[in-house]
Amino acid sequence: MDKLIITVAPTGAWPTKQDTPYVPLTPEEIAEETYRSWQAGASIVHIHVRDDQGRPSMQFEKFEKTVKLIREKCDIIINLTTSGGLDIPDDERMKPFMELKPELASFDAGSMNWMNTSVFLNPPKFLETLAAKMKEHGVKPEIEVFDTGMIYNALNLVQKGLIEKPLHFQFVLGAPGGITATHKNLLHLVESIPAGSTWSVVGIGRYQLPMIYTALSMGGHIRVGMEDNVYLAKGVLAKSNTEFVEKVVRLAKELGREVAKPDEARKILGLKKTFEDVG
Amino acid sequence: MDKLIITVAPTGAWPTKQDTPYVPLTPEEIAEETYRSWQAGASIVHIHVRDDQGRPSMQFEKFEKTVKLIREKCDIIINLTTSGGLDIPDDERMKPFMELKPELASFDAGSMNWMNTSVFLNPPKFLETLAAKMKEHGVKPEIEVFDTGMIYNALNLVQKGLIEKPLHFQFVLGAPGGITATHKNLLHLVESIPAGSTWSVVGIGRYQLPMIYTALSMGGHIRVGMEDNVYLAKGVLAKSNTEFVEKVVRLAKELGREVAKPDEARKILGLKKTFEDVG
Amino acid sequence: MDKLIITVAPTGAWPTKQDTPYVPLTPEEIAEETYRSWQAGASIVHIHVRDDQGRPSMQFEKFEKTVKLIREKCDIIINLTTSGGLDIPDDERMKPFMELKPELASFDAGSMNWMNTSVFLNPPKFLETLAAKMKEHGVKPEIEVFDTGMIYNALNLVQKGLIEKPLHFQFVLGAPGGITATHKNLLHLVESIPAGSTWSVVGIGRYQLPMIYTALSMGGHIRVGMEDNVYLAKGVLAKSNTEFVEKVVRLAKELGREVAKPDEARKILGLKKTFEDVG
Amino acid sequence: MDKLIITVAPTGAWPTKQDTPYVPLTPEEIAEETYRSWQAGASIVHIHVRDDQGRPSMQFEKFEKTVKLIREKCDIIINLTTSGGLDIPDDERMKPFMELKPELASFDAGSMNWMNTSVFLNPPKFLETLAAKMKEHGVKPEIEVFDTGMIYNALNLVQKGLIEKPLHFQFVLGAPGGITATHKNLLHLVESIPAGSTWSVVGIGRYQLPMIYTALSMGGHIRVGMEDNVYLAKGVLAKSNTEFVEKVVRLAKELGREVAKPDEARKILGLKKTFEDVG
Repeated sequence: MDKLIITVAPTGAWPTKQDTPYVPLTPEEIAEETYRSWQAGASIVHIHVRDDQGRPSMQFEKFEKTVKLIREKCDIIINLTTSGGLDIPDDERMKPFMELKPELASFDAGSMNWMNTSVFLNPPKFLETLAAKMKEHGVKPEIEVFDTGMIYNALNLVQKGLIEKPLHFQFVLGAPGGITATHKNLLHLVESIPAGSTWSVVGIGRYQLPMIYTALSMGGHIRVGMEDNVYLAKGVLAKSNTEFVEKVVRLAKELGREVAKPDEARKILGLKKTFEDVG
Repeated sequence: MDKLIITVAPTGAWPTKQDTPYVPLTPEEIAEETYRSWQAGASIVHIHVRDDQGRPSMQFEKFEKTVKLIREKCDIIINLTTSGGLDIPDDERMKPFMELKPELASFDAGSMNWMNTSVFLNPPKFLETLAAKMKEHGVKPEIEVFDTGMIYNALNLVQKGLIEKPLHFQFVLGAPGGITATHKNLLHLVESIPAGSTWSVVGIGRYQLPMIYTALSMGGHIRVGMEDNVYLAKGVLAKSNTEFVEKVVRLAKELGREVAKPDEARKILGLKKTFEDVG
Repeated sequence: MDKLIITVAPTGAWPTKQDTPYVPLTPEEIAEETYRSWQAGASIVHIHVRDDQGRPSMQFEKFEKTVKLIREKCDIIINLTTSGGLDIPDDERMKPFMELKPELASFDAGSMNWMNTSVFLNPPKFLETLAAKMKEHGVKPEIEVFDTGMIYNALNLVQKGLIEKPLHFQFVLGAPGGITATHKNLLHLVESIPAGSTWSVVGIGRYQLPMIYTALSMGGHIRVGMEDNVYLAKGVLAKSNTEFVEKVVRLAKELGREVAKPDEARKILGLKKTFEDVG
Repeated sequence: MDKLIITVAPTGAWPTKQDTPYVPLTPEEIAEETYRSWQAGASIVHIHVRDDQGRPSMQFEKFEKTVKLIREKCDIIINLTTSGGLDIPDDERMKPFMELKPELASFDAGSMNWMNTSVFLNPPKFLETLAAKMKEHGVKPEIEVFDTGMIYNALNLVQKGLIEKPLHFQFVLGAPGGITATHKNLLHLVESIPAGSTWSVVGIGRYQLPMIYTALSMGGHIRVGMEDNVYLAKGVLAKSNTEFVEKVVRLAKELGREVAKPDEARKILGLKKTFEDVG
């Protein structure tokens, strides 16, 4: 079993200070929370930013500042979102990774109804452009999969030469409109990707913990953080993203599975550089 | 095992006379092809229409004429599409079933990337309206499922009281962007719907036959027709939709499974009327 | 999700003092280890005994003494093995539960090759007698399943009226000759038992922990102890069975799943009495 | 998809002339039935013999005569049973293949309760000897799997060097005491064998047809014959084993899957010789 890669997703697009006072929203808050999560055992940070009013945003300056602050503090692998909100022009979605050249960026591999209210749009043409730009800028796509057809979409781009193996998948289970968060569904997704791929799992809200337990023991990797879930236990808000990371580290230790440091995670994911190169 | 319900989908939105000269496009052609398929063993017809240039369309007059011609000929159950094309206003999508009150209409239960080129849009708000209107007009939704999240979407509307049990699902496997056509995926879908539901399967193109073999022997129902596949065998165009129906009837006979007549299908699906009522 | 029932199996048939000095073998040792496991959170004890040379045995006196000592100490649910060794006459296998009337006894629901060396024999006729005797003496069978066919065998006896619902299954994965210890296999077993059944899992040796993680988060129950595994971590012998129980309790707590006390476990399993009645 | 290999198992151990007057029991009857099945499309014959009273038997002379008669008639691949009855000494079970050197012989890969009445014994030591002898005599084992643990047993012998890849599995579903005949179980078995293996399926009794439909469309191979099922349809006895073969050939034709001739089957199974060599 590979060492465990823990991704922290500290901010996301939705939780507000009203939902939880502990969610980091400014570049300074996100960088500080990332640094502490790295100390706790996270080797990847998945970054969303907010505008000055705390709303979901793809403002380049916010990404720029956040990345700069993080890189000054630690060698964590940086993964920038390309889906900072629902109606953002393609160019704005891609600018942060094109300019800042993180090692990873999220690649939401299809369109779907979203949270019973809207549509999360990632049309085929956008996906082709996104894949081509990531390839051009040396950014590895973290293929986010909300349902089985998204695996098809990604493999279609592999066949076209726009995404290169080895693939890394982030399975998101329990988002309304996507695949539900059952053990059966998680196993089904894992069995549906090409041999030699790596995968990580996100369980939304109260499904975070069950998905973690199974992924841990199957050899998968794990994403935690307030982007997906703000409760540490039933009715108890996490006071920091580090509390989620610490919990996963404890569970890994009980299982006897070691936690990967960033350079170990780079190796597992087939990233070609070390922090020396990217920092 | 229930008797087998065969749905014929003679026309669909995509095949042109260039693809196959045998596809029925006018109301007269569609009605005649339906009648012959009914003679061969089909108990449901899933109707799309075309405009005078043969393009996909939701023109009410075409539906009206087609339904009228079919009802004059036979007691087949009529299922009208609500997805006659990709960019059609909601009202036009719903008018045919609201006016013509077929026993079934298709309910495409979510949005997805479509055929590597576009997005098939069925946003949450539209689905709510669609379900409410079907309920109001006494039309049973045939819940078309292209991926697992669409089952979630449908069940969400069941919880809201907009769709009533027993549910009938049409699983579509092998559409690019949706769930792929494997036995594993078919079984997974079947295991993901509520007990007491009925289900039918569509395999796109060359996946039609493998999906038929398995669904037949699992007790599922089957849809065939040029909407999904124009080849009867490798390189051999079907000369009529009836050839597909006849093949399924032969396969059912070899298995020892009886084929349902329309009134038997009505019972299996929980449709409350007989043809006397609806005709 | 039900509260978690932890079964401790402190002794089993195979580990010797050479394998681990910490395995309890005498009635006194077993009772003391059981008491401490109960304090740690176990609500069922699965009892094997050994003869004075420490060899696997069905000696009635050993069972009698062990049960007496345990009942003096705590209200844990007692589950007596009926498979204390490979070549023991049927009568000896059944005498302990017939005389001592524990609430549970193990019911190994079929025959199989065993550990690449011998055959574990539980022929149909013996299973019929065993079920009939358990029913007669008010002992609930813990249906031990080492492969899928054993579920069939048990259900066959349910149909004959010899085993009564609700059923309780103990899935044993990873015993050489039985079903292997994969998440896929565990899920398959869980999906193969009747609705309304309860189930628990045993992973043999190094498979103990992965099976625990998944079962915990699926709502299953768990058996731990030196019968199945003597290592607490890679290369580290458990100094006591309580260390396994404590680990499971910690994992349940991290998940937010409560641990059942014996009387709560009695309710979950449908045992009709409380300790007042059986003690 | 490989061409389809049809095995005919005309006799088996159990059906008597009372069960069906059409079952072939003598060497002459078996050879004639085999010849006609070969004409109909079978490329392998799985041979059991009976004594002069029609009882299950491992009499060498019966095998010798049957094989001789078949080889005079056609180039079908010969597969001799090693399990002609429940209480036959190991030597008698192995003598036919050791002397007659068929290309295949059955390898029942474990022990299990049998038909709710007895135990089908294939202990680890016997399996080791059986594998070694098959290897020594150049006979490829057809690994008969009645439950998932038997795959484990076979792979254990592969690791010991006693069975060589590529492996050929015969999955038997629906035998009381073994894995039940569901699509889910068939898929589970198929997913549990090493990549590069071939597999065939037997559904017992009324499960024969559903298993055939799915295996056909998944690319698996098929065994039919009176050993497993004597009814061609509900209440209708097959008048000859050829009726089963003909049905499978019709179903393969409807699917567009070609039927393998014996030399094509040899290639698919990795048998090194042609009939010229073995005949």
